[in-house]
Amino acid sequence: MTDVGLRPRDRGGLGSLFEPRGVVVIGASTDPDKLGGAMAASLAGLGLPVALVNSRGGGGMFTSVREAADGSPVPLDLAVLCVPAAACAAVLEECADARVGAALICAGGFAEAGGDGVEHERRLREAASSTGIRLLGPNTSGFFVPASGLRASFVPGVAHLTAGSVAVVAASGGLNHALAFALQRQDVGVSLGVGIGAGIDVTAVDVLEHLAEDDRTTAIALHIETVSDGPALLAAVAKVSATKPVVALVVGEHDIGEFARSHTGALATSWRSTRSLLRQAGAVVVDDEDALVTAAATLAAVRLEPQSDPGAALVTGQAGPGLLVVDALHGGDVRVPDLSDKTRARLGELLPPMTYQANPVDTGRPGPAHADVIGAVAADAAIAVIGVYGLTEPVIDLPRVVASADLNGKAVVVGLDGPAEEVSDGRRTARSLGVPLVVGPRALSTALVALVEDARLASARRDATIAGAHGAAGIVADGVGWTEAQAKDLLDDLGIPTPSRAVCTTSEEGQAALARIDGPVAVKISDASVAHKSDRGGVHLAVTTAHAMTTAVDALRSIGAVEFLVEAMAPAGIDLVVGARRDPVFGPVVLVGVGGVATEVYADVAIASVPTSLPRLTALPGQLAAHALLDGFRGGPTVDREALARVLEALGDLLVANPHLDEIEINPLRAHARGLVALDAVIVSSHQPDEMADEQRKTHE
Amino acid sequence: MTDVGLRPRDRGGLGSLFEPRGVVVIGASTDPDKLGGAMAASLAGLGLPVALVNSRGGGGMFTSVREAADGSPVPLDLAVLCVPAAACAAVLEECADARVGAALICAGGFAEAGGDGVEHERRLREAASSTGIRLLGPNTSGFFVPASGLRASFVPGVAHLTAGSVAVVAASGGLNHALAFALQRQDVGVSLGVGIGAGIDVTAVDVLEHLAEDDRTTAIALHIETVSDGPALLAAVAKVSATKPVVALVVGEHDIGEFARSHTGALATSWRSTRSLLRQAGAVVVDDEDALVTAAATLAAVRLEPQSDPGAALVTGQAGPGLLVVDALHGGDVRVPDLSDKTRARLGELLPPMTYQANPVDTGRPGPAHADVIGAVAADAAIAVIGVYGLTEPVIDLPRVVASADLNGKAVVVGLDGPAEEVSDGRRTARSLGVPLVVGPRALSTALVALVEDARLASARRDATIAGAHGAAGIVADGVGWTEAQAKDLLDDLGIPTPSRAVCTTSEEGQAALARIDGPVAVKISDASVAHKSDRGGVHLAVTTAHAMTTAVDALRSIGAVEFLVEAMAPAGIDLVVGARRDPVFGPVVLVGVGGVATEVYADVAIASVPTSLPRLTALPGQLAAHALLDGFRGGPTVDREALARVLEALGDLLVANPHLDEIEINPLRAHARGLVALDAVIVSSHQPDEMADEQRKTHE
Repeated sequence: MTDVGLRPRDRGGLGSLFEPRGVVVIGASTDPDKLGGAMAASLAGLGLPVALVNSRGGGGMFTSVREAADGSPVPLDLAVLCVPAAACAAVLEECADARVGAALICAGGFAEAGGDGVEHERRLREAASSTGIRLLGPNTSGFFVPASGLRASFVPGVAHLTAGSVAVVAASGGLNHALAFALQRQDVGVSLGVGIGAGIDVTAVDVLEHLAEDDRTTAIALHIETVSDGPALLAAVAKVSATKPVVALVVGEHDIGEFARSHTGALATSWRSTRSLLRQAGAVVVDDEDALVTAAATLAAVRLEPQSDPGAALVTGQAGPGLLVVDALHGGDVRVPDLSDKTRARLGELLPPMTYQANPVDTGRPGPAHADVIGAVAADAAIAVIGVYGLTEPVIDLPRVVASADLNGKAVVVGLDGPAEEVSDGRRTARSLGVPLVVGPRALSTALVALVEDARLASARRDATIAGAHGAAGIVADGVGWTEAQAKDLLDDLGIPTPSRAVCTTSEEGQAALARIDGPVAVKISDASVAHKSDRGGVHLAVTTAHAMTTAVDALRSIGAVEFLVEAMAPAGIDLVVGARRDPVFGPVVLVGVGGVATEVYADVAIASVPTSLPRLTALPGQLAAHALLDGFRGGPTVDREALARVLEALGDLLVANPHLDEIEINPLRAHARGLVALDAVIVSSHQPDEMADEQRKTHE
Repeated sequence: MTDVGLRPRDRGGLGSLFEPRGVVVIGASTDPDKLGGAMAASLAGLGLPVALVNSRGGGGMFTSVREAADGSPVPLDLAVLCVPAAACAAVLEECADARVGAALICAGGFAEAGGDGVEHERRLREAASSTGIRLLGPNTSGFFVPASGLRASFVPGVAHLTAGSVAVVAASGGLNHALAFALQRQDVGVSLGVGIGAGIDVTAVDVLEHLAEDDRTTAIALHIETVSDGPALLAAVAKVSATKPVVALVVGEHDIGEFARSHTGALATSWRSTRSLLRQAGAVVVDDEDALVTAAATLAAVRLEPQSDPGAALVTGQAGPGLLVVDALHGGDVRVPDLSDKTRARLGELLPPMTYQANPVDTGRPGPAHADVIGAVAADAAIAVIGVYGLTEPVIDLPRVVASADLNGKAVVVGLDGPAEEVSDGRRTARSLGVPLVVGPRALSTALVALVEDARLASARRDATIAGAHGAAGIVADGVGWTEAQAKDLLDDLGIPTPSRAVCTTSEEGQAALARIDGPVAVKISDASVAHKSDRGGVHLAVTTAHAMTTAVDALRSIGAVEFLVEAMAPAGIDLVVGARRDPVFGPVVLVGVGGVATEVYADVAIASVPTSLPRLTALPGQLAAHALLDGFRGGPTVDREALARVLEALGDLLVANPHLDEIEINPLRAHARGLVALDAVIVSSHQPDEMADEQRKTHE
């Protein structure tokens, strides 16, 4: 056939890949043990034309893509390449001639294998780029769209997958399948499952953008190994999560370097940064693949209204499992509020004595009033979502009871436990009634935590008007070695409080500064080339007398000091570390931690991509494990979170406005009873600002 | 019938409860919705005589226990009481007259309900004690022994439970059932499942002791809510875990106070202490009920030889899931060692190029050589246990492949993923071949971590010869308010290094001490009644001159100091906190943490019950999240772990030898380049030692 162009809407998009009108398998085989045979078999169930190509022909196969295209009643939008790595680039070019719009390459043997593979990959990238064909792979087991029967995967079990509304977007083909099967084992169907593999063209970003427009998908399970384009990923997650929930699992908490690199062919990005920034972008971040499956399946069925702190309730038939759920809800930072007096009074009417009529509600073995009990809890204004846990019962069918309850618009998730047979029955009933159901206490707490987290992220998104670069945009930071005094002058310009101070060169200037500044002063060497001032004997603290000043100045001169800094000592308080730096993957970020070694040893740092909104920055320190330290811990100061947020904002703005700056860190930022003060600051820039910026600096000075 | 005594071996033991010759249900009913009806129905399948008693008779039921016993061909060893709380004590006495040896009470309405319940419980306790009947409950859903068909539970699903070798010992009846059902859903049978409930007679300790002798049981899943007798629990866990693995889940990480108390009628003990001490006693401690089930099921099938640091290998057909497993193994502190050159060479022969032939071994889709690949890894001396992960395959049946591999005596666990149907088939095959199998990457890593942890605990147990109280046994600590100097003198007696110091009352003594002690000194008020010396202006640091000494002494006198302490200042280093105290549940414990607020904010404290062995104490700091700080972090000192262990041992011995001491804490214990030194110590005793001890102290002084 001729004259059939790409469908316009496909150009650049993934329609040809996921919704082709026809498919061609190149390197097809009649041997099911070969890739080309497995693919042909897997695609046989597709209700669309599937053309098989093998250069040796035979078995009714075409000998070229062109021949197949000419013989096809529909355009062959998708090509599945089952040929060796060395042949892929050339075949892709043939495909372009035959008006193919998308291709899948499962094979390995490209850059990740080294040797000739590097050249094979270079040529493949070139072919993809020059032809405009959207390429999934190489090094993936493929993808599947169960609703259309499109199973472009060589894993035989995909025939069992059913259609549903959870999309799986996995870095790895193997994990794509593992996740889809885990969903299938819970009777949850899949809208699309994709393993990105090497991702030399189609990446998770492209698939997320495709899913934003995919009506079949109501939630996305995202698995991340490495990130190549951080800002694009964050933008895609932010876009999709505005309309459908994204649940993300990031691998690589621990050092799994060599194997990870062999698999992905790329350096793993920082696990902590990736998780923090995905969360900031709107993804519910989970810790393991079980939680990924549970959270995505639940969020595909139900989503809370955006709200900053939804309250959860538990109605349980058994106290012991209920304790596990409540313990895990607290661990997931979910509020389990008290029920109102009205609710308690109603529960008192509905339930026998000796049951626990607070939150959780421990009903004992469910009775005929169970739906009313759930309804009473749902009517409580403090409650946004309800978990209903119970063992399977022949007389009380929990999914049916929940479906019959008046939920007052509130969300509910059933947690069931029981023998396999009865749990399967419960699952089927729940599915048919549209009631979200999970199995076991842990899954129930995971589901509730995910619902609450998603609602909180949505609320933060609503509040997140990015104000753009502020005053700092006009401030240009010089690129040469900074003395402490210069760095602090810059902080002053940014509106960040610093101690009273004077740069001195003579003993007389030192005495004058001592007289002028209230209270004891610190006297420090001022030399950008001295990094560890204390270690070098360059810091004298608590100087209060003229005699002590003379002694300090003499001592500094004896270690070669020309200039020295006389500075008011700060009141006691809590030392924080704040900074802004350029993440190699995600770009400008700000971070906050508690000072001292704890930040590093416990890896307790909260991080946000900038620019962002002030409310987000205000909430940031709350992510620290040690956040209790900021709230008057043991008689210490209560840190002004908004003032702290403004410091972070200023640092972020500075970095965004000054591309030549690599990093600025205030360590420590002392939080004391009356506010914040920056006690030391380090600025790193790997290159000079350009001439114009330099001029601006001079003007500014 | 008459003259049939208790079987001698039952006296005190739980034979009558779990292996009765006959059963009597009191308060039996023909209505299956009533407890007495549900119990009668559940026990109907038992191949033993079950007598039904109802005071109103009818339906072939006896009207009294005595009548039932007289009419029974076998002794009715077990009575199941389905009567109201108020009637239980009297019925228990009737049971004793009828030679019943054990009883189960499911009902609530005792002390946990308050009001009359308190009196009902008091009378029940009295009856249990006076009759010697072993009583399970009240407030439990019962127990089951599937192998004998004994299902003394009102939960209908128990009919589905199959016989196996995992015993479940749960604080809660509901969780006992939830765990047993979770095992059933994984095709794993149960030897015994018990919910302890109120535990007024039979506790987890009794059941553990019973299980130590139970040949049907090869692993125990233990669920703990509260602990009444800590030492007895630890002793029972230590005893059982020597011969069969114990996996423990402790609920209550977060504050779930009121509901927990309503359920258990007791104050929850410290979650952290309970976990640490159970682990020390030999239990594999897990974080959630999914891990409890996976670990217990795996350890029921396979157990490693005791070894201090077993190496794990992973053979995976898919890289993505393999990365998740390896990441989690690192997170579980499991070593994934390199394979030997010999092993790698052998893998090179067996596997196609482009596979990853290190550890993990990423085979790509398994081929015919898969059993040999597993065998090659098993032959590697560095490997003690192998995880084999893969998606289900029609041609490669993973459990069968593993069963056919030459494992060289090494342990193996299969992790399977695939559609429900194929995974079920794999489970059945694995079960029939005796191959441990779990589903999914997370379960595989959980299983491997549990095997390694169990082997390490067994190794620690082997090395753990408790040396008993040492020198400290002879040291008696006085009970009145301690000055810092007195506390440090005691540390000297214990062989714990302290700074050079002198207690002074005059300025001249101060000057003499300054002259005698090397380097700068601290001058501090010495007054047991001043708790926060620094806050009161009672500490002057870095005194080096006679003038400064005079100033310091004058300043101390101005705040009322009579006695003051002149002390050498310690070299810089890392500040630790060590101590010994009496846990209200578990008795004497020692603890170690990193100093400063981190210990508290991050709850990062390692704890051990004492007396214990020096190797255990040497290993203790390794449990700290911040343990990297002790190993030359950022140029800091490397802490001598054995010296630290000796300090802990001395503190523990002191507490054990001095019953009137409540607590001794050294804070900080400074670790510097040349060793440890105690910079401050606090001793708390709530009462005086007795007269004799006081005399001993005087002699010692």
